[in-house]
Amino acid sequence: MVSNELDVLRGEIEKVNMQILDLLNQRGSIVQQIGKVKETQGVKRFDPVRERQLLDLIAENNEGPFETSTLQHIFKTIFKASLELQKDDNRKSLLV
Amino acid sequence: MVSNELDVLRGEIEKVNMQILDLLNQRGSIVQQIGKVKETQGVKRFDPVRERQLLDLIAENNEGPFETSTLQHIFKTIFKASLELQKDDNRKSLLV
Repeated sequence: MVSNELDVLRGEIEKVNMQILDLLNQRGSIVQQIGKVKETQGVKRFDPVRERQLLDLIAENNEGPFETSTLQHIFKTIFKASLELQKDDNRKSLLV
Repeated sequence: MVSNELDVLRGEIEKVNMQILDLLNQRGSIVQQIGKVKETQGVKRFDPVRERQLLDLIAENNEGPFETSTLQHIFKTIFKASLELQKDDNRKSLLV
């Protein structure tokens, strides 16, 4: 019975993972569009003030169980990956 | 006009961030339940085979634009935070 309960919970984790995966890639597409707009404006991609705003929004909207600092660490990993995605796009556009 | 476009895209990022935040905490709650089940079973919390399965599922379902390796890195950060959450719960239950 307990192992069945574990299976059900694991199924739920897989479902949530797929939703997070989908949202991360949706976010990636938006970030790519932002990168293109910034390129035409000649604006720097990395914006520490904006990053701080986004981290503050996490703090304000966190209902747990994760600690805010833990969630902000996860989001910083996402921000870093997003910046790399913009850089890759820029590199590719310079090559063609 | 361009700055307006940037504002719209930034609004979309904030919306997606809040959805990711919500899913991460939903995932945290499920992970806490898994921790409790494992505790009653005396099963180890960290399961590298299961983690591998979850990472493979990311690879199979990734439609981009993020590289699979990037997404797996983000998910490993989430897995690590989840394990810490279970440990904290266990520590608390030992203290009462």
